[in-house]
Amino acid sequence: MNPVDLITRTRDGEALSTDEIAFLVRGITTGEIPDYQAAAWCMAVYFNGLIPRELADLTLAMAHSGDTVDLHDTVKFAVDKHSTGGVGDKTTLVVEPLVASCGVPVGKMSGRGLGFSGGTIDKLESIPGMRLSLSLPEFKRQLREVGLVLTGQSADLAPADGKLYALRDVTGTVQSIPLIASSVMSKKIAGGAQAIVLDVKVGRGAFMETLPEARALARAMVGIGKLVKRRTIALLSDMNQPLGCAVGNALEVREAIDTLQNGGPADFREHCLTVATHLLLLARKAKTPAAARRLLTAALADGRAWAKFRQFVSAQGGDVAVIDHPERLPAAKYVEVVRAPRSGVVKQVDAREVGLAAVDLGAGRHKKSDAIDYAVGFVIHHKVGDRVAKGDPLFTVHANDKVRLKQARERVAAAHVIGARAEPLPLFYGVIR
Amino acid sequence: MNPVDLITRTRDGEALSTDEIAFLVRGITTGEIPDYQAAAWCMAVYFNGLIPRELADLTLAMAHSGDTVDLHDTVKFAVDKHSTGGVGDKTTLVVEPLVASCGVPVGKMSGRGLGFSGGTIDKLESIPGMRLSLSLPEFKRQLREVGLVLTGQSADLAPADGKLYALRDVTGTVQSIPLIASSVMSKKIAGGAQAIVLDVKVGRGAFMETLPEARALARAMVGIGKLVKRRTIALLSDMNQPLGCAVGNALEVREAIDTLQNGGPADFREHCLTVATHLLLLARKAKTPAAARRLLTAALADGRAWAKFRQFVSAQGGDVAVIDHPERLPAAKYVEVVRAPRSGVVKQVDAREVGLAAVDLGAGRHKKSDAIDYAVGFVIHHKVGDRVAKGDPLFTVHANDKVRLKQARERVAAAHVIGARAEPLPLFYGVIR
Repeated sequence: MNPVDLITRTRDGEALSTDEIAFLVRGITTGEIPDYQAAAWCMAVYFNGLIPRELADLTLAMAHSGDTVDLHDTVKFAVDKHSTGGVGDKTTLVVEPLVASCGVPVGKMSGRGLGFSGGTIDKLESIPGMRLSLSLPEFKRQLREVGLVLTGQSADLAPADGKLYALRDVTGTVQSIPLIASSVMSKKIAGGAQAIVLDVKVGRGAFMETLPEARALARAMVGIGKLVKRRTIALLSDMNQPLGCAVGNALEVREAIDTLQNGGPADFREHCLTVATHLLLLARKAKTPAAARRLLTAALADGRAWAKFRQFVSAQGGDVAVIDHPERLPAAKYVEVVRAPRSGVVKQVDAREVGLAAVDLGAGRHKKSDAIDYAVGFVIHHKVGDRVAKGDPLFTVHANDKVRLKQARERVAAAHVIGARAEPLPLFYGVIR
Repeated sequence: MNPVDLITRTRDGEALSTDEIAFLVRGITTGEIPDYQAAAWCMAVYFNGLIPRELADLTLAMAHSGDTVDLHDTVKFAVDKHSTGGVGDKTTLVVEPLVASCGVPVGKMSGRGLGFSGGTIDKLESIPGMRLSLSLPEFKRQLREVGLVLTGQSADLAPADGKLYALRDVTGTVQSIPLIASSVMSKKIAGGAQAIVLDVKVGRGAFMETLPEARALARAMVGIGKLVKRRTIALLSDMNQPLGCAVGNALEVREAIDTLQNGGPADFREHCLTVATHLLLLARKAKTPAAARRLLTAALADGRAWAKFRQFVSAQGGDVAVIDHPERLPAAKYVEVVRAPRSGVVKQVDAREVGLAAVDLGAGRHKKSDAIDYAVGFVIHHKVGDRVAKGDPLFTVHANDKVRLKQARERVAAAHVIGARAEPLPLFYGVIR
């Protein structure tokens, strides 16, 4: 096989065979196919896409390009969830203990945040003592014993995807639906998931800004799931405004704790219950959405979800006293409440601007090597559609630097639009099965 | 400037500025922009094209990426011709002495052949003694003294084009009209041409197989010529059947000699007269096509064209006795005449098949490092539209190896289709100004 022929055929919209795709992925992993050929192929895929069968072949080839996790010896049925990333998205911190407390074990390997979207591992690191680089035997032991484990992704999982992603990042080929879809699914499959709930964010604070794009990505991933025989569904959820109120690592952990203790912002609680419902259904733990929801609300109400989170934090070396007293989480030097400049209805809270302002404060990374300030961030007090009076608290800035505080305050104030009328935003735009 | 942004903008169909294109070309030449980014950019250009101003910018940036030849101190006005490559295309061997004998000096830097299309330098090398790697001072001196010089292309002419072409060759991005157009024009401009006649071949034996593609390439090149202020015209000429009769290096030199001595195949003579007419017009040596043609036919008839060729061969060290006695040119061991298997009209002589069969015989290169057998090739005795009787000579094979002879004979026999009726093919499909 000749890589130039394969590039040319993808360029001309002709499908490659399973063997040809395996040859490409193998060559990219070993370096036998040079980066310039891989880059040209990615750009051809950007323009012409791949047919579903090619996409499944690419996903499996990447999933099997390195180590794979087999959880059959550990749990009866391994479920996973994946969010395409958003602002204030601390869903995993709530959904996974919640589902685990209902008897569905969850072991998850998560990425770190980059750009305006935060990462679960970064958030958990704001709890002192947390160990988030577990070995596979540690991962399996805790999954068996606690029913809940979360760790950073091992470098050996789907290395072809890692290489290809790094190359896409510098060749203008990140925004390709088939390449995003196969990247996500290859890591889930390498991680041993038998069923996957995909939370595909859409809007200003998501990688997919429009509903048609988000739907296309969701369809591509669900299509791959079907072809590779993993029960997969995708939710299309709003990311025009931040999810919940808190944006920033420790602030989000605190909001997750509130929610696990049966409180938390209404939109975030509802979002978590919906995602968790689909996880219980895929795991066959409940027969109907209503039955799943009853199990979940009970687990929140009677403290089981919270107890599972405590058990998980303790198992991974985290300081339980800190989560029991969340005021002991990393706190910022400066906390400033910004008030509504006029009365009216909140028309917009631009999630992307809030996310970028949080990165500017130090809550996220501009580049991979940046250190994170766990304490800083925002609490956004209102959702789109809320009525506010002039002088009401609009948002609170948590900062460790006065100059940055001022810049962030201005950026997030500008992200808020108050007008005469606005409807609340929906939480979800649909489900792709 | 960030290469990823530039790739992304070309990917999204947005035009780059003159400075941005200069930045790309400089980065590609120095290697500061890595091959994988250059490859991704080429693929984006393949899909989205470039606007005329970008194309002119790219061409000039590549032309100025290395040495440039300035002929103002040598000739009043430098004209050049370029063929996009075909089978049996020995036009340069006739047109350049012919035009030079009419008082228009021509100095040309030529490439070698690759694939099914032969190269002028390879053809001239079949004359013993010819020196075809002249230094720039030698080139200029001969241009001044003889009015005619032909040499292989210096490596320092448009090095950005050389690098980019090598990369395109291995990334499936050769067949891009803007990239082909800027590649050709950058070399002509670096070579000092002030006026250029482009011979754009179209058909089975050309890189552009269809008229719309060939016309698009011709328009792109003429458009560049206009923007960079070089008088440029493009002829669209037929390459469905070989041009003239001879295919193969020494055989083609022999046919060129016949033509320069006022003989040669009618189609080839007419092709040369048309190309030469445009050269005389661009050089303002004649006011009308009819006047140009009178000058040219006179130069062929009275021996001036032939004398100029002899003078040129002698000046570059070639053995004039060999061209005076062309039977002394390299000759093949086996010469076999293949006859028409039936009576009828020649419907097709597939130029690509004939070209590939010549490469198989050893007349051309499969890869750059292959050596060439100057003696081998074909003489095709009939053109499309000719009536033949069963047993008439159809073509003659010149070979140095019996196995290859047999294979070539079969391939070229299959390239001939004899039917009931066929119209002659036109020589030209139009002129783009």
